[in-house]
Amino acid sequence: MHLAIEQARIAEKLNEVPIGSVLVDPMGIVKQASHNMVKKNCDPTAHAEMNVIRMECQEIQNERLPGYQIISTLEPCPMCASAISQARISQIHYGTSDSKSGGVESGPKILSHSQSHHKPKITRGTEKALCSELLKKFFKSRR
Amino acid sequence: MHLAIEQARIAEKLNEVPIGSVLVDPMGIVKQASHNMVKKNCDPTAHAEMNVIRMECQEIQNERLPGYQIISTLEPCPMCASAISQARISQIHYGTSDSKSGGVESGPKILSHSQSHHKPKITRGTEKALCSELLKKFFKSRR
Repeated sequence: MHLAIEQARIAEKLNEVPIGSVLVDPMGIVKQASHNMVKKNCDPTAHAEMNVIRMECQEIQNERLPGYQIISTLEPCPMCASAISQARISQIHYGTSDSKSGGVESGPKILSHSQSHHKPKITRGTEKALCSELLKKFFKSRR
Repeated sequence: MHLAIEQARIAEKLNEVPIGSVLVDPMGIVKQASHNMVKKNCDPTAHAEMNVIRMECQEIQNERLPGYQIISTLEPCPMCASAISQARISQIHYGTSDSKSGGVESGPKILSHSQSHHKPKITRGTEKALCSELLKKFFKSRR
């Protein structure tokens, strides 16, 4: 999680929404780390989770990532939750929940929906206060 | 829709799931056309809808597409439906519904969920039989 938080802090400095993700392979090795790049890349799909998935799939030349774990500072949105499922990632861990825009335990609850073809194991809560504080500070500064 | 179907046919020839999308700008001009490229690009997020959104955002150097219409042969999945909403696209039209993997009128119904911050206008049904037949033929040939 400290690597994901480091990524969120990089995003903050770039004036992107401070969310970071890392992707850990089945051997426990951190393979990718990224942050929100929506503004920089002019890409509404360039969320931290989407970036690490694309980067790793490109690197291993496979569109599926079974046995992998994705760690994010924030609960993934419905787009990212669906992408995580489609990539067959085995585990999700996130720092803090997002009742406004999250899609795992919040909103449409993508991964627990009966339609979901692949349901990763979900855990949460590491560095919850810090992950949450980064976001609150960012949105407060923009008001 | 005929351009989206043309894209779906290209995907079929490349052994990708035969789904095509086009993106029409606020002036009614077709700006982008693409098809599913998950296998070719080794990218689980490379659905037709995601591709046209990324291409156009890159071209106009903006992460939002208000006033645009996206036309797809199939009901967008939850990932694409969420991306469409996040890109602020104004209208969606699709050929045929997808009760198994769709995310607009099916499954988690992303765009009609109370959490959805932006709800595009949704229409459907143009060339429904043809759009559906393309998919049925593809999956039948792979069984």
